[in-house]
Amino acid sequence: MNPPFHVIGSKQFDQIALEQLFHSAAQMEQIVAAGGTTRFAGKIMCSLFFEASTRTRLSFESAMYRLGGSVIGTENAAQFSSAIKGETLEDTVRVVSGYCDVIVLRHTDVGAAHRAAEVSARVPVVNAGDGSGEHPTQALLDLYTIQKELGRIEGLHIAMIGDLTYGRTVHSLSYLLSNYKDIKITFIAPDNARIPEAVKRYLDEKGVVYEETGDLMKVSGTADVFYQTRVQKERFPSLEEYQLAAGKYIINRHLLDHMRSDALILHPLPRAGEIDAEVDADPRAGYFRQAQNGLFIRMAILENCLGAGSAR
Amino acid sequence: MNPPFHVIGSKQFDQIALEQLFHSAAQMEQIVAAGGTTRFAGKIMCSLFFEASTRTRLSFESAMYRLGGSVIGTENAAQFSSAIKGETLEDTVRVVSGYCDVIVLRHTDVGAAHRAAEVSARVPVVNAGDGSGEHPTQALLDLYTIQKELGRIEGLHIAMIGDLTYGRTVHSLSYLLSNYKDIKITFIAPDNARIPEAVKRYLDEKGVVYEETGDLMKVSGTADVFYQTRVQKERFPSLEEYQLAAGKYIINRHLLDHMRSDALILHPLPRAGEIDAEVDADPRAGYFRQAQNGLFIRMAILENCLGAGSAR
Amino acid sequence: MNPPFHVIGSKQFDQIALEQLFHSAAQMEQIVAAGGTTRFAGKIMCSLFFEASTRTRLSFESAMYRLGGSVIGTENAAQFSSAIKGETLEDTVRVVSGYCDVIVLRHTDVGAAHRAAEVSARVPVVNAGDGSGEHPTQALLDLYTIQKELGRIEGLHIAMIGDLTYGRTVHSLSYLLSNYKDIKITFIAPDNARIPEAVKRYLDEKGVVYEETGDLMKVSGTADVFYQTRVQKERFPSLEEYQLAAGKYIINRHLLDHMRSDALILHPLPRAGEIDAEVDADPRAGYFRQAQNGLFIRMAILENCLGAGSAR
Repeated sequence: MNPPFHVIGSKQFDQIALEQLFHSAAQMEQIVAAGGTTRFAGKIMCSLFFEASTRTRLSFESAMYRLGGSVIGTENAAQFSSAIKGETLEDTVRVVSGYCDVIVLRHTDVGAAHRAAEVSARVPVVNAGDGSGEHPTQALLDLYTIQKELGRIEGLHIAMIGDLTYGRTVHSLSYLLSNYKDIKITFIAPDNARIPEAVKRYLDEKGVVYEETGDLMKVSGTADVFYQTRVQKERFPSLEEYQLAAGKYIINRHLLDHMRSDALILHPLPRAGEIDAEVDADPRAGYFRQAQNGLFIRMAILENCLGAGSAR
Repeated sequence: MNPPFHVIGSKQFDQIALEQLFHSAAQMEQIVAAGGTTRFAGKIMCSLFFEASTRTRLSFESAMYRLGGSVIGTENAAQFSSAIKGETLEDTVRVVSGYCDVIVLRHTDVGAAHRAAEVSARVPVVNAGDGSGEHPTQALLDLYTIQKELGRIEGLHIAMIGDLTYGRTVHSLSYLLSNYKDIKITFIAPDNARIPEAVKRYLDEKGVVYEETGDLMKVSGTADVFYQTRVQKERFPSLEEYQLAAGKYIINRHLLDHMRSDALILHPLPRAGEIDAEVDADPRAGYFRQAQNGLFIRMAILENCLGAGSAR
Repeated sequence: MNPPFHVIGSKQFDQIALEQLFHSAAQMEQIVAAGGTTRFAGKIMCSLFFEASTRTRLSFESAMYRLGGSVIGTENAAQFSSAIKGETLEDTVRVVSGYCDVIVLRHTDVGAAHRAAEVSARVPVVNAGDGSGEHPTQALLDLYTIQKELGRIEGLHIAMIGDLTYGRTVHSLSYLLSNYKDIKITFIAPDNARIPEAVKRYLDEKGVVYEETGDLMKVSGTADVFYQTRVQKERFPSLEEYQLAAGKYIINRHLLDHMRSDALILHPLPRAGEIDAEVDADPRAGYFRQAQNGLFIRMAILENCLGAGSAR
């Protein structure tokens, strides 16, 4: 038996793997339009969520059902499961892997998905976010949206805005972008929420061009993609630090007037004021289409993990 | 594409719509007896519950499964979802509508279902209770139970008892009853929990005969239907107000002796002392059959929202 | 209509019933290996969990899906259901039994499953743990594991270790073992967590040989089965009592060296230090295989409750 295909971090995907995945996601879009499939009848996905993430969980569960499978799981295991009885994550995964065919894991600790994969010899583990670590399926759907909306990834100029220290989707997306040629990234953050050194080092190694600035207006007329993020109160060490970072960069009608007509505005959602509601009706506002693409990407991920045609 | 058929309030149903729905509910009863159907295979319902309501949620989910569909959802989204990250209901609905075919929404705020329907261009929204607003599917199953048990609705005398201020099922049922001829309603409530003026105004406009009293015994021998309700502690502004209202009207063996032999006792459940357990064995105790009818009505509602034959 | 087949306590199973159940469980193992069945298509199981027990719930839900059925339910009904509105368990069961074909009940109160079965005239109730009462399906999977791993039950010497006062799985397993000949049980517990008199009386009546000791090493080289348990903090009256009981008996490499080479180590899980991780790789460590057997036993239980061939 081949080892299972785990999805742990965005660095595991090269350009060929990405192209295959996006091709599969496009097929999934057609499958959904046609009313779903029964391909995964009899298969069970376990949503093992140690912290709540309603949106991510619902999109994974929808993906499994659209493919004809079933779902067991927990909305928020940390509050009331074996965890509070002192069980290790490894033991939980060993047991749960006996009840399902794929585990989708959301955890508060960096490295949790990797630890889970280590002890899951038969069942693939998909990382749905591990603390301030990675959230690879979010980055995959972000990149898929860029490809789908703008028709290409190579040569683009991407502005990443907001909380770049704790915003793990920004890190994961940066790693993915480094697979493509002629990418330029502008990191726009307040001083206490700048992009970590580790991410910059990785981009340096890969030869990706990037710059850091505190001034969103500097790239407002030139960037192809504006990747806005929420400043996540719960990730900051103090209220003061949070308030320094929050509310500094807001995408509104004024900014829209400066943007290129073919620009694309993305946001991993939920938003909390960083994008004005008045922007929603603009065709450049891609964030709800982006959320919808999460379904197709997660279907493609599940197909990769569970499908007969997966090469491992 | 036609706009989706949302179920927001009881006032949207006229007598013809009610008759069609009840006809459909009766068919659903036969489908359940025959072991269900696969009619909705591939369809996904999302239970989006921002406050817990186990009974309502389970009956909707059972309805979807009896029709062959699947369910994603959340038991209590407010505690741990994007809501605590500051997301608006509108954004949540926009995203979730990309993952399902129908949304069943329970919320704490009056008007939430209407707001959700406004931004759900593709997916129907069913109101499963919005604060002290409406709970239309409860009122529909109440009325269906009356029709099924007594064979008619026209000409009936209905006593509504208990917390008539905060008991939204009483309001919704009153609105539905106003579609029928020769209805008489007696509202029986303590002074601090009387039926709101808005409901009375609506009944006046529709020409429905009603009276208010604090004395249950006054109609004990004449009413056809006794619609008992729980005094909901959580809806009262203070403990004192609650205690004034609670425990004033209890249906027990003594009252049964005064009731007509063909009377019907209903309660939206859960009960907390307003109906003695000794009443349960009496054939006039219809509240558990009423709860069972909730399944059939909700199947009929889903059929209306999702079915091929739905007239919109 | 025959009355439903409820699973309330381990005493309801005699040796013939156990053999039939184990035979069915072995068949279920083959069904799972073959990718599941659609035998229960259209059937609905309700997981009615008034306290969280993620592991037990997930294995029941997996069992239902492997058999082709559907699941509705609640992870932790006590926190937010009708219960907090004052509803009795009996009312909840009466209502929920109208929405499903089998109820799996987890409750905090001893006797809850029995009370539920009393009012469930149509739908079978399966006890998934009632406070410090019973947890029969756990005991059934424990015994099935012994049978499967050691090839027999008769004549075995079983050491039960840890919290024998509050550890209900130990009680239930003792009751089941009393169906077999030549069983010897050694109860190994700290003074404040000894096996209750009621269990001893039952074993006396059934003629089962047992002894009590505080010394694990006494049987380390002779017992066939080491049934280790977690000392459950939440069941002890005070922290002091808990600390006296916890950590006294730990299965580690040192103990392994004393054990027979054909011994079997079991644990209902979760563990919290009572078995060292270094033991996991030893072939005598049967606890993860035991957890996996929970799936097959629960499938067999559901087959007994719902299947066409169920003899009632």
